[in-house]
Amino acid sequence: MVRKPTPDDRFSFGLWTVGWTARDQFGEASRPALDPWEYATKLAELGAWGVTFHDDDVVPFGSDDATRERILSTFKKAVDDAGLVVEMVTTNTFGHPVFKDGALTSNDRSVRRFAMRKVLRNVDLAAELGAETFVMWGGREGSEYDGAKDVGAALDRYREGIDSVAAYIKDQGYGLKIALEPKPNEPRGDILLPTVGHALGFIAQLENGDIVGLNPETGHEQMAGLNYTHGLAQALWSGKLFHIDLNGQRSIKYDQDLVFGHGDLLSAFFTVDLIENGFPGAGTDGPMYTGPRHFDYKPSRTEGMDGVWESARANMEMYLLLAQKAKAYRADPEVQAALEASGVLELSQPTLAPGETLADLLADRSAFEDFDADDAAARDFGFVRLNQLAMAHLVG
Amino acid sequence: MVRKPTPDDRFSFGLWTVGWTARDQFGEASRPALDPWEYATKLAELGAWGVTFHDDDVVPFGSDDATRERILSTFKKAVDDAGLVVEMVTTNTFGHPVFKDGALTSNDRSVRRFAMRKVLRNVDLAAELGAETFVMWGGREGSEYDGAKDVGAALDRYREGIDSVAAYIKDQGYGLKIALEPKPNEPRGDILLPTVGHALGFIAQLENGDIVGLNPETGHEQMAGLNYTHGLAQALWSGKLFHIDLNGQRSIKYDQDLVFGHGDLLSAFFTVDLIENGFPGAGTDGPMYTGPRHFDYKPSRTEGMDGVWESARANMEMYLLLAQKAKAYRADPEVQAALEASGVLELSQPTLAPGETLADLLADRSAFEDFDADDAAARDFGFVRLNQLAMAHLVG
Amino acid sequence: MVRKPTPDDRFSFGLWTVGWTARDQFGEASRPALDPWEYATKLAELGAWGVTFHDDDVVPFGSDDATRERILSTFKKAVDDAGLVVEMVTTNTFGHPVFKDGALTSNDRSVRRFAMRKVLRNVDLAAELGAETFVMWGGREGSEYDGAKDVGAALDRYREGIDSVAAYIKDQGYGLKIALEPKPNEPRGDILLPTVGHALGFIAQLENGDIVGLNPETGHEQMAGLNYTHGLAQALWSGKLFHIDLNGQRSIKYDQDLVFGHGDLLSAFFTVDLIENGFPGAGTDGPMYTGPRHFDYKPSRTEGMDGVWESARANMEMYLLLAQKAKAYRADPEVQAALEASGVLELSQPTLAPGETLADLLADRSAFEDFDADDAAARDFGFVRLNQLAMAHLVG
Amino acid sequence: MVRKPTPDDRFSFGLWTVGWTARDQFGEASRPALDPWEYATKLAELGAWGVTFHDDDVVPFGSDDATRERILSTFKKAVDDAGLVVEMVTTNTFGHPVFKDGALTSNDRSVRRFAMRKVLRNVDLAAELGAETFVMWGGREGSEYDGAKDVGAALDRYREGIDSVAAYIKDQGYGLKIALEPKPNEPRGDILLPTVGHALGFIAQLENGDIVGLNPETGHEQMAGLNYTHGLAQALWSGKLFHIDLNGQRSIKYDQDLVFGHGDLLSAFFTVDLIENGFPGAGTDGPMYTGPRHFDYKPSRTEGMDGVWESARANMEMYLLLAQKAKAYRADPEVQAALEASGVLELSQPTLAPGETLADLLADRSAFEDFDADDAAARDFGFVRLNQLAMAHLVG
Repeated sequence: MVRKPTPDDRFSFGLWTVGWTARDQFGEASRPALDPWEYATKLAELGAWGVTFHDDDVVPFGSDDATRERILSTFKKAVDDAGLVVEMVTTNTFGHPVFKDGALTSNDRSVRRFAMRKVLRNVDLAAELGAETFVMWGGREGSEYDGAKDVGAALDRYREGIDSVAAYIKDQGYGLKIALEPKPNEPRGDILLPTVGHALGFIAQLENGDIVGLNPETGHEQMAGLNYTHGLAQALWSGKLFHIDLNGQRSIKYDQDLVFGHGDLLSAFFTVDLIENGFPGAGTDGPMYTGPRHFDYKPSRTEGMDGVWESARANMEMYLLLAQKAKAYRADPEVQAALEASGVLELSQPTLAPGETLADLLADRSAFEDFDADDAAARDFGFVRLNQLAMAHLVG
Repeated sequence: MVRKPTPDDRFSFGLWTVGWTARDQFGEASRPALDPWEYATKLAELGAWGVTFHDDDVVPFGSDDATRERILSTFKKAVDDAGLVVEMVTTNTFGHPVFKDGALTSNDRSVRRFAMRKVLRNVDLAAELGAETFVMWGGREGSEYDGAKDVGAALDRYREGIDSVAAYIKDQGYGLKIALEPKPNEPRGDILLPTVGHALGFIAQLENGDIVGLNPETGHEQMAGLNYTHGLAQALWSGKLFHIDLNGQRSIKYDQDLVFGHGDLLSAFFTVDLIENGFPGAGTDGPMYTGPRHFDYKPSRTEGMDGVWESARANMEMYLLLAQKAKAYRADPEVQAALEASGVLELSQPTLAPGETLADLLADRSAFEDFDADDAAARDFGFVRLNQLAMAHLVG
Repeated sequence: MVRKPTPDDRFSFGLWTVGWTARDQFGEASRPALDPWEYATKLAELGAWGVTFHDDDVVPFGSDDATRERILSTFKKAVDDAGLVVEMVTTNTFGHPVFKDGALTSNDRSVRRFAMRKVLRNVDLAAELGAETFVMWGGREGSEYDGAKDVGAALDRYREGIDSVAAYIKDQGYGLKIALEPKPNEPRGDILLPTVGHALGFIAQLENGDIVGLNPETGHEQMAGLNYTHGLAQALWSGKLFHIDLNGQRSIKYDQDLVFGHGDLLSAFFTVDLIENGFPGAGTDGPMYTGPRHFDYKPSRTEGMDGVWESARANMEMYLLLAQKAKAYRADPEVQAALEASGVLELSQPTLAPGETLADLLADRSAFEDFDADDAAARDFGFVRLNQLAMAHLVG
Repeated sequence: MVRKPTPDDRFSFGLWTVGWTARDQFGEASRPALDPWEYATKLAELGAWGVTFHDDDVVPFGSDDATRERILSTFKKAVDDAGLVVEMVTTNTFGHPVFKDGALTSNDRSVRRFAMRKVLRNVDLAAELGAETFVMWGGREGSEYDGAKDVGAALDRYREGIDSVAAYIKDQGYGLKIALEPKPNEPRGDILLPTVGHALGFIAQLENGDIVGLNPETGHEQMAGLNYTHGLAQALWSGKLFHIDLNGQRSIKYDQDLVFGHGDLLSAFFTVDLIENGFPGAGTDGPMYTGPRHFDYKPSRTEGMDGVWESARANMEMYLLLAQKAKAYRADPEVQAALEASGVLELSQPTLAPGETLADLLADRSAFEDFDADDAAARDFGFVRLNQLAMAHLVG
């Protein structure tokens, strides 16, 4: 169907994805936990390029230093032997009950301090392993009850926390960038920084925001009914698309973490189109996402270990399939003509002409006084036909 | 039940709210259209302080200058006679089919220019009428099909448009501020700047962003399943809460525009609590919303004109009721003790001590090495009890 | 890409679909209204087989008898000349403000009586035109406020209404069947019989329920986050899938009425798979949907008349494309083997063996006492691989 | 605020509610597990009347018969000593991974047989303990992938399963009724019988449906954006409201299981109004829910054991508060007048007059030919005022 993935595709997987033992809110684990290195080896065989992990995915919470060193060294060797890179590291600040009211924004100051230390320790590890991105998902930063969280103070503490971590990265001279991962809810009733937008707004308030960007996850935006590709686009436009978490979600419900493309397929096509081909009017001359193609999904609980690897494979296959089709879509002269006819390319033209001032615009009677709004309203934009051309490429 | 509203409450209404003739997607108007001034007079009688409007609410689209002047002057006189202020003006850039693919981000450049002119003309009017806020809701800025909109280019155009309007305001020396109104969808499949967060992120990219802020609407955030009070809080924290649109919405569905409080009642209580009382840890010493209490709702289509005025009255009654209860809630010593016990007030304490550096934190063994996470995890935050105290104030 | 549609495909369109002038909740019409017969002629050219309509789509509300006769006779001739059939007729009981609180369940008894008469008159017309199905969408049967509708009484009146219409059909000896169309909300806050399930439960309470079934619409079920194909399946299993309304919807939001397949594409594939191929374990020997392939969509407001016809064409093209792929999917030996391996076909085997009693089951120690639950739990169902095989057929 | 609950209020709690150790999808348990009898004793002290449980809540999955007997006997004694009744029993057919593809509808026949046995064993226990209701929540009966479940066959198996259990109850002469509990999704992507309506439709297809009804849960209906009170109303109207699960949910998202009233408060008010006061037009002469007031909620993960008991108490307090207010609402002459004016009571009048035939209706010119639709359309239903009266009772 499509070629096999290679390291050049830069596909990476969280250890917690293939390593999920499928314990969920209503049931016990349906799969065994392998050692971290076993996942790495197998992912490399399937064609992946990188692995990523939370500290606790590799080293159990509360391990003493000696145990930690031993495990990390075994893990590092396995990753190297497999030819994989560790492109991203993240911290688990949500699993242990100490974080039940959040980490950097817990109402308990001692928890906030502990969280900060756990994160900083992991920053050192990330730098040591050569990761480029440090993801921060504040899964427990939030509340179920509006009265239980002073959101103003919480944002102060969140800013203090992220700014401190960013300052540490700079001070240490690490080459890391921080990528915030928004999510609207689950496991908290409302999570702070619930969407790509809220995180962008928050970053604008940081002192060290220059090295802080986004790690948008497909399903997280879709859990708020938002267009994931639009979210990626605004992050990219803002120079903040540092990393991505690809997966699948079907409508607004609990976080499904399906295989990429197994959720909203049409949306996935345009996500890949944006990642691979850039904005239509700018192409690869415009802003481009240059990071890894990272999958953050969960193999369904009905699957055994064979199914786990099938699902890992399916993520990459879906991406390659969609990339192939997105390339053909953009290259198709009929599509280019339709984009032109629909004005999609015209949107790159500034509204004001080169050198035109507002005074000029106000003096331009053709723009208003002599503008025939009814006539302009009659334009047939041809969007349905354009979309059907995309469908023809996708499923035709 | 509660006292009658007075102008000191600073309640204001859009003319398009009481003036909605109840034509909807599936049916014809069920109420007559009165002249704009009739609404103003009646609102004043009910205790409102201000009115707001879109250009087309008062002057029909495409009116010649003489007609426009005549209508506006009659309107202005009626508003003055009624003792009302025009606190906000906004532009209709969504009703006429010329805007069917948007206004400032239409794929058609001539439409973008026309839109800019229509907006600028209205800015002059807003200044002339003494309005303080100029709301911009980009209801048609968006798309149904991902391929039909170059989102990068659209955000470029949106920035060009808003920056131009803001520059014009500054150039003219008007005392206006722009307030963007986010909405996730409807009437477009996906609207650009879908939430408070996305608008905050966008404003950070503007050249003239200092006079651009937010006008968050209750139902719009709730249509994305987001916590409206959290949205207000982030806007306030960012110094960008310039105006508010209060109404009611029941869960994720079409835009209902119910009376404020007739949607998610518990959320409405905490919205009013934030507006009236500020952040719990800072109170009125912290950032406070100081603008009007503006209602953007629709009297249900089942109501006649009596019902219209009942519904206008109900908005103010609900707000006053909730404000009364929110005051009592905050003043209750049992609530204050519960907030303390729950750590809600503790969150205002910085995570780092005064003068403490990250090096100090890293050297503090009590923060990590000697921290007993299990012990800290055992803390009973008492959030349910705190919430039940709020319920006791609200419905007890 | 795919062959052109022919009457044998039995594609039909509501006149109100291509005839929608694109007036929406926030804007004026963007397209002209043609005469009803013009739509019919054009649909026939595109390959459609049938048309359907509400009374008011053809004859304006309140027309006198002479006008009505004249228009209907012109319309009927045009339909005949075009070689189309009128396969379904429905009544508009939602557009005129008299229906603002519903029709058969309006709180106003005189409205209920008027609605009944309007419906019965249209039943006569449906019979006269040879339609097989009489759809009833109770778009205004509902409420915004729980206190404003006695739901017990409303269901009594709904039952009275539907039973009366069904009795009339039987009394007149018409060959019509009634198909109820569920929708969760919009234009009312909550609509009675909100989903396929609620309508099935309601039909079970009818006296004349034997000729009452369902007309499930893709987007309506998806507006409640429900799986449309599952809804069709339960209706089919209950012997009540009388008609279908195909279109597209993207997640939980206002009713989008996109082209079929332009919403949740993967779901659309399995919808067509069920319609064309039946249940996997039973195939065409099991219950099959035998009605028309009816589209109930709206050409986007951005389109002119060319775009209207492109969109009508796109519906049929999408269906044919998906049907082709669904046939290939089912015929693929690898898919059949995967269905077998996943136990999909095993589910057709009764849980009790032929002749086995519950006492036998209770005595079967292999079923419980000697059953190794952990061993059985280890089965790899291979669902992700099966789904990926479907994806390979769909987009591979 | 309100009086303390007493056994006469018939409040009951699932053991799994107060007994939830707060392990969730993203984190470990934050509370210890007590012995089952400890919860019972404490609930009785708080004023509860009954307890309910899944088999596995009391006896660990896979326990041998001796262990089971020993635990059950201790439990039974504790319940008796506390003066509690066991009003309902249910079976856990979702926790153990053997049920990962469902129980009665698993693709694996051996699992279906095992599930049937586990259920039947529990039916015996329910009868022995004197329970009146046997709840069946098919939490894993469903799928993530449309191709992975033959829904026609699944409904066949579901029917076989429920009919068999019902037959067994009848054969044994047990006084039990089965109550199906619908849920749209979570933990499966789509669950079969997703709403009250689907379950009602399914029951209509059963052979032994006479003893099968519903156990609707507040949050489950709201997860599909549906009106819970409407769902209760249709079940009640169908004679199928056998049991209820009260809790709180905020909009469409993961299953929150908040305290009753801590979700959609206004909806909770009308839920209690229906339960306590019946349909407005019929009152307690009409169909009434006569079962227990059962809470199925989860104490938030942030709470310790004190918080657990506070939350249990809060459920009862909220119910009593709302019941008090609902009584006053119905008794208020102003409300009765408003109900009358709004036509809410008029809806109990049949549309046809006593003895009137359809022929009579067709001959009644006042119903159609001479009916002035525009005049009738002008009626002001006064629904907003009516709702505001409810608000005045609720929060005034």
